[in-house]
Amino acid sequence: MTISLPQLIEWRREFHQFPETGWSEFWTTAKIADYLEPLGFEILLGKQIINPDFVRGRNLAIVEKGIARAKAYGANSKWLEKMEGYTGCVAVFDSGKPGKTIALRFDIDCVDVAETKDPNHRANQLGFASRNEGEMHACGHDGHITIGLGVAHFLMANKDKLTGKVKIVFQPAEEGVRGAAAIAASGIIDDADYFAGSHISFCANSGTVLADPKNFLSTTKIDIRYKGKPAHAGATPHLGHNALLAAAHAVTQLHGISRHGEGMSRINVGIFKGGSGRNVIPSDAEIKLEVRGENKAINQYMVDQVMQIAKGIATGFAVEYETEIMGEAVDMVNDAELVKLIKEIAMAQPQVHSSDQDYSFNASEDATILGRRVQDNGGKAIYFIIGADRTAEHHQAEFDFDEAQLLTGVNIYTTLIEKLLA
Amino acid sequence: MTISLPQLIEWRREFHQFPETGWSEFWTTAKIADYLEPLGFEILLGKQIINPDFVRGRNLAIVEKGIARAKAYGANSKWLEKMEGYTGCVAVFDSGKPGKTIALRFDIDCVDVAETKDPNHRANQLGFASRNEGEMHACGHDGHITIGLGVAHFLMANKDKLTGKVKIVFQPAEEGVRGAAAIAASGIIDDADYFAGSHISFCANSGTVLADPKNFLSTTKIDIRYKGKPAHAGATPHLGHNALLAAAHAVTQLHGISRHGEGMSRINVGIFKGGSGRNVIPSDAEIKLEVRGENKAINQYMVDQVMQIAKGIATGFAVEYETEIMGEAVDMVNDAELVKLIKEIAMAQPQVHSSDQDYSFNASEDATILGRRVQDNGGKAIYFIIGADRTAEHHQAEFDFDEAQLLTGVNIYTTLIEKLLA
Amino acid sequence: MTISLPQLIEWRREFHQFPETGWSEFWTTAKIADYLEPLGFEILLGKQIINPDFVRGRNLAIVEKGIARAKAYGANSKWLEKMEGYTGCVAVFDSGKPGKTIALRFDIDCVDVAETKDPNHRANQLGFASRNEGEMHACGHDGHITIGLGVAHFLMANKDKLTGKVKIVFQPAEEGVRGAAAIAASGIIDDADYFAGSHISFCANSGTVLADPKNFLSTTKIDIRYKGKPAHAGATPHLGHNALLAAAHAVTQLHGISRHGEGMSRINVGIFKGGSGRNVIPSDAEIKLEVRGENKAINQYMVDQVMQIAKGIATGFAVEYETEIMGEAVDMVNDAELVKLIKEIAMAQPQVHSSDQDYSFNASEDATILGRRVQDNGGKAIYFIIGADRTAEHHQAEFDFDEAQLLTGVNIYTTLIEKLLA
Amino acid sequence: MTISLPQLIEWRREFHQFPETGWSEFWTTAKIADYLEPLGFEILLGKQIINPDFVRGRNLAIVEKGIARAKAYGANSKWLEKMEGYTGCVAVFDSGKPGKTIALRFDIDCVDVAETKDPNHRANQLGFASRNEGEMHACGHDGHITIGLGVAHFLMANKDKLTGKVKIVFQPAEEGVRGAAAIAASGIIDDADYFAGSHISFCANSGTVLADPKNFLSTTKIDIRYKGKPAHAGATPHLGHNALLAAAHAVTQLHGISRHGEGMSRINVGIFKGGSGRNVIPSDAEIKLEVRGENKAINQYMVDQVMQIAKGIATGFAVEYETEIMGEAVDMVNDAELVKLIKEIAMAQPQVHSSDQDYSFNASEDATILGRRVQDNGGKAIYFIIGADRTAEHHQAEFDFDEAQLLTGVNIYTTLIEKLLA
Repeated sequence: MTISLPQLIEWRREFHQFPETGWSEFWTTAKIADYLEPLGFEILLGKQIINPDFVRGRNLAIVEKGIARAKAYGANSKWLEKMEGYTGCVAVFDSGKPGKTIALRFDIDCVDVAETKDPNHRANQLGFASRNEGEMHACGHDGHITIGLGVAHFLMANKDKLTGKVKIVFQPAEEGVRGAAAIAASGIIDDADYFAGSHISFCANSGTVLADPKNFLSTTKIDIRYKGKPAHAGATPHLGHNALLAAAHAVTQLHGISRHGEGMSRINVGIFKGGSGRNVIPSDAEIKLEVRGENKAINQYMVDQVMQIAKGIATGFAVEYETEIMGEAVDMVNDAELVKLIKEIAMAQPQVHSSDQDYSFNASEDATILGRRVQDNGGKAIYFIIGADRTAEHHQAEFDFDEAQLLTGVNIYTTLIEKLLA
Repeated sequence: MTISLPQLIEWRREFHQFPETGWSEFWTTAKIADYLEPLGFEILLGKQIINPDFVRGRNLAIVEKGIARAKAYGANSKWLEKMEGYTGCVAVFDSGKPGKTIALRFDIDCVDVAETKDPNHRANQLGFASRNEGEMHACGHDGHITIGLGVAHFLMANKDKLTGKVKIVFQPAEEGVRGAAAIAASGIIDDADYFAGSHISFCANSGTVLADPKNFLSTTKIDIRYKGKPAHAGATPHLGHNALLAAAHAVTQLHGISRHGEGMSRINVGIFKGGSGRNVIPSDAEIKLEVRGENKAINQYMVDQVMQIAKGIATGFAVEYETEIMGEAVDMVNDAELVKLIKEIAMAQPQVHSSDQDYSFNASEDATILGRRVQDNGGKAIYFIIGADRTAEHHQAEFDFDEAQLLTGVNIYTTLIEKLLA
Repeated sequence: MTISLPQLIEWRREFHQFPETGWSEFWTTAKIADYLEPLGFEILLGKQIINPDFVRGRNLAIVEKGIARAKAYGANSKWLEKMEGYTGCVAVFDSGKPGKTIALRFDIDCVDVAETKDPNHRANQLGFASRNEGEMHACGHDGHITIGLGVAHFLMANKDKLTGKVKIVFQPAEEGVRGAAAIAASGIIDDADYFAGSHISFCANSGTVLADPKNFLSTTKIDIRYKGKPAHAGATPHLGHNALLAAAHAVTQLHGISRHGEGMSRINVGIFKGGSGRNVIPSDAEIKLEVRGENKAINQYMVDQVMQIAKGIATGFAVEYETEIMGEAVDMVNDAELVKLIKEIAMAQPQVHSSDQDYSFNASEDATILGRRVQDNGGKAIYFIIGADRTAEHHQAEFDFDEAQLLTGVNIYTTLIEKLLA
Repeated sequence: MTISLPQLIEWRREFHQFPETGWSEFWTTAKIADYLEPLGFEILLGKQIINPDFVRGRNLAIVEKGIARAKAYGANSKWLEKMEGYTGCVAVFDSGKPGKTIALRFDIDCVDVAETKDPNHRANQLGFASRNEGEMHACGHDGHITIGLGVAHFLMANKDKLTGKVKIVFQPAEEGVRGAAAIAASGIIDDADYFAGSHISFCANSGTVLADPKNFLSTTKIDIRYKGKPAHAGATPHLGHNALLAAAHAVTQLHGISRHGEGMSRINVGIFKGGSGRNVIPSDAEIKLEVRGENKAINQYMVDQVMQIAKGIATGFAVEYETEIMGEAVDMVNDAELVKLIKEIAMAQPQVHSSDQDYSFNASEDATILGRRVQDNGGKAIYFIIGADRTAEHHQAEFDFDEAQLLTGVNIYTTLIEKLLA
């Protein structure tokens, strides 16, 4: 191995200073490319790895702000151009020898949280806090990028000993499960025999690896927008087409979607915005919701019901409507071969004392879309958790994690690669 | 005049014994025809006077029961055949001389009320109570028929003195405002220059005639039926298409139809029946509603909204639906010429002391459909109220009215005819 | 053994002729008492075995009709008096020797189905069809009674060989899960060490015994009634308190009760009746619903939400309301000791070839309330299924079952008793 | 008369530059006081004229921003202190002689509109555009203040000729009908024999005075806020108390409030904001609505229904709630004596050619609260409209009006005062 923990920590702290929210990771993507191209990786960007038809929850204003900021921070314009407005990259390692292909996935976006100003917070003490107000690597994706870079160095350092290929996917917009679908649909990992992804910390402490989380929930995030016709609420209420009232009725119907007989389902309308003035029949309303299902079929049942209701409401209230899928993830079952390997590899790390714990994920991760894509093509997939002590829960302003576990992560991946490709 | 009060009373009490609910007035219609054909009237029946496309709220089981009962009571089969299943008749008087055409309307159906068993009730004392359990002439339409017969006798007795034509419309199914639309749409009164209709008693006592009631409300009665798919509520709720839930949401949307800026509107879902078992996703639901409007346009706005909502709900819940118009009436403004005439004629009756009172009807009557039809064709129309003391409110089991006012009614109509046709 | 199959069949066909719907099983109860008292059983009736506070879904009109009919059929007035209006009985066998106490439960009510008139239906061929129009033993409870009688005969025939006690519970009103709660709350089986109950046929054919059905759902059946104030929908709509609109909104809220994060939940409003006339603001509405939960806690969560919503709606619409619990059942896990015994006993029957199949009940049975009561008191409980071929599904007008399995049922129970008490 | 049109225009343009939204008119109030105190008026401020219990729709952040800005603009701190945080003032003229008391009302707040940057807009051409971004005198209240100042100068210039008292009310927060209730409730005009108020321009052009607008609608503006409990929508949805869902159901119920049989009613939920994240059970929601009625009683019926529903929803969803009245106005009928006077006075102005036109206001103005207060105390009241050509509709960024009509306004008021007090 060629990568030391201090190097990993240096990288992590650099990325920590430049957190970028989903689909605006221009500086981050360019920096990764800057680091990996010289090592010999082929760098794939933009529509090479993103199918625009499957891009979810991408806000153009945020994209443009991200590009401008990346330029201001001096991001390499060569990469910015090739990105074509779409963040993320895939770094391809080709051993030059026949063999298996492994896809690894590291997510690179931050969350919309303002980092604490507490002087005791390590990033404040050591001067590596976020420079982007209201954005923070509070979910540990700075660590994920770092592990990806560590693995990349390993690959090139051990090119002679390895066969086949490794595609390191640096995925944008994991928050809101928005980025994976577009990468999967690009076909870029369709030749993969193996897929692996992971999260650092999460609910596990340093010394624990959760090799086989269960119950990844399928989910779809949907926005519904109604557009009616304004009218004066006192004088001519009958001339209005009331988008707010339509949306309110939509909410009452959505929450009443029948439970599914074959497994868990969920629905939540989390945000409602409608109307402009108290005395105007509201002409605009938007609701933001998510559905979940124990599996893809149940989740799809929920999506179908949502779409049906959205349309029925528009019909009944004579308002226009649009629905937009803002994010999605699926359920996935880890392949036993890879679970067994990760358990063994993890336990071989001196600092790890447990890799065999049962764990129910009970949440959604869009790495599953990539994993299922590989499985559907006949390959094998795994998503696991690398324990790391943390100072606060994920997404909190005070979040930080045990940086020593970055090396644990790199070692697990590199050992896995050795076992599969050496 | 050839008709005496005792004759009128005899007729009224005969019809009182055979009350028939809307669209089942087979005995009544046949009896009227039996009385009037020998006098020289042309009797029009069935599709001659009924346009089936505009028949409202006609229940086939009730029709068949009515036919069977009329036969059992010995109704003339000649008329039953010609009726083609549709009750009501128009008796045409033709003076043989050129002149104006007058359409008069008398409604003939009863209400679904069981007549009181109280021995002090006159019909019980004198033995002319309803023979049809659960049906009763508790709205005075037996009196209306009687006045129509009285007028008919007058016409033939005075044929030489009169010009033009009179069409006496004996209308079925006024209750629920169901019968007039089909008669109007048959075109049978499209040649009328004048239209007159009236109600006995209502809110006025003996001695009062209300010559110009105002505020007839436009109304439409609508049934909405949803048909879904049953499923076991415990095991496979997701397989059901819930008609009851759909109808419940329809109710909440219907009551929320926006008020109209230009005048009074109303909506009421008066009846809801849905589902068959507690543990079955309900596959059937029906709601019965009415809308009203200060005028036809506002009422139509309400109807349009109802239809839109009914459809939107069906779309959103993936259930089948049907809507049926069960009744309708419009607003109507009496023509000044006829109001003036009726006021004068009424005051010329010795027993009448008032004909000039303001009165707001604030309810619906489908005579307005016939009156508006005549007005729309350039004619003039009136609907007035012949006061009569009553023993209880209309539609009560104890209802009876001052039979002496039958003669008042006949005299007003015959004097009007003299003034218009002599 | 002293009971022959022909005797069992004779009993079954006798009870089949006198089906009585829940809480009206007066003839049935009296007949059972007539059969068992002479054998030496103590017969407990009325409030000895029924806690009126926990009686669910008992309609007084049906009770009175049941009593009158039972008298007309010549039911023993001694028993009718002791019943105090409450059906069902417990027959107590006391060996006179110390030992364990076993509670057995056989349900005795019929379903509200009119038996087929098909001449090929065995009950029609052999003349033992239902004499009570609209009621039929279409769920096999006539067979349950019969097995109970068979077991009773065995007990007395083998009194010398047995120790302890057996309480044979003949439970009313299982349909709608209405009867068990009142028996449990009477405390009559609180001394039981073992509890056993079963269903004949269900989904299993002759030769199969399902010794350990899983997933009994907790459920509560609730009626909600709203009482408002009528008003004329055209003239004075603001004076009404709209019970139908209240109930419709209740339905929309009830179906939107949040899913539970810890397991399956269900809700269904199966029946809605409201209003009396299209033009009257409805003053009355009733909805009939059920909730279910994977366990008691989740079911209780649903019940709590329903009660909260019922009250909130009454507050918001200024209407009066009442809620009534119409039925209830709980989840139950069979005790391993009894499962093992039943499996062995079943396989020892020559006609049984399978007793080891997995089966998910996925429905509700109020025997669980009795079983859980015994378990909560430290005892052990089981509910199993005695396979029997059937001619149609349960609750169908054409239902009949393989009567030979009555003997299978008796043999399983008597062997169980021998193993536990001999 | 001592006031020239150029002086009026100068004042109007000064106030136009410092528009202040409702309850933040600190600079405006101080400036009025600065102008009127030296003339001899008693200046009443703060709780002398404002009853805090009846203050509607006053946002503390806006108040504080207003105070800070007024200080920055150099507002007289003497007045700022006396205001006690409440804007508006009453300038009292006392002739020293016995006589009638007249209350005049001029509203002083602006609207939340950014003034156009169009160089052709007069305020831009002549350099008197709004200095407060996002705020603009786009409803002509700068003109109202100006007329009030003009009248004030007249009073002092003619003190010898006049009897009695005049109270000139400079009212804050007319937009949203928020300010009048607090002034009325202070009792400051309870000694008035006459009340007069007016609007400039509105729908009338230069040369027209509308002396008797009809159909002022009673209205109440209400905010409802629900506070529930957040929970993770995937893992623990049952732990949430869903404020957004509660508010959505509230909207569906509110729009379904029954029409009133005795006259026009309105309801509109104009704004809905709820929830914070797609995957969080929403813990907060707010809706902003208004009701209206043809008269106070019908409006109050609507308010009562709203309050009932707001509470019922809170009960049913187990969420906390608060309601806040944000504004209110009543209906008012002008007194015939004053209508006659204003018509005559208006027609005596050379530039006015019409004062007799029928006009239906069909909207709400909180001057009615003050007018009705005076009427309820036995006095007489009027609200009229002073026509003025305008460049755009009120509340538009391009709004401006014919400044020559400021003098028309002053002359009408001063003539009225002469007629009543001289």
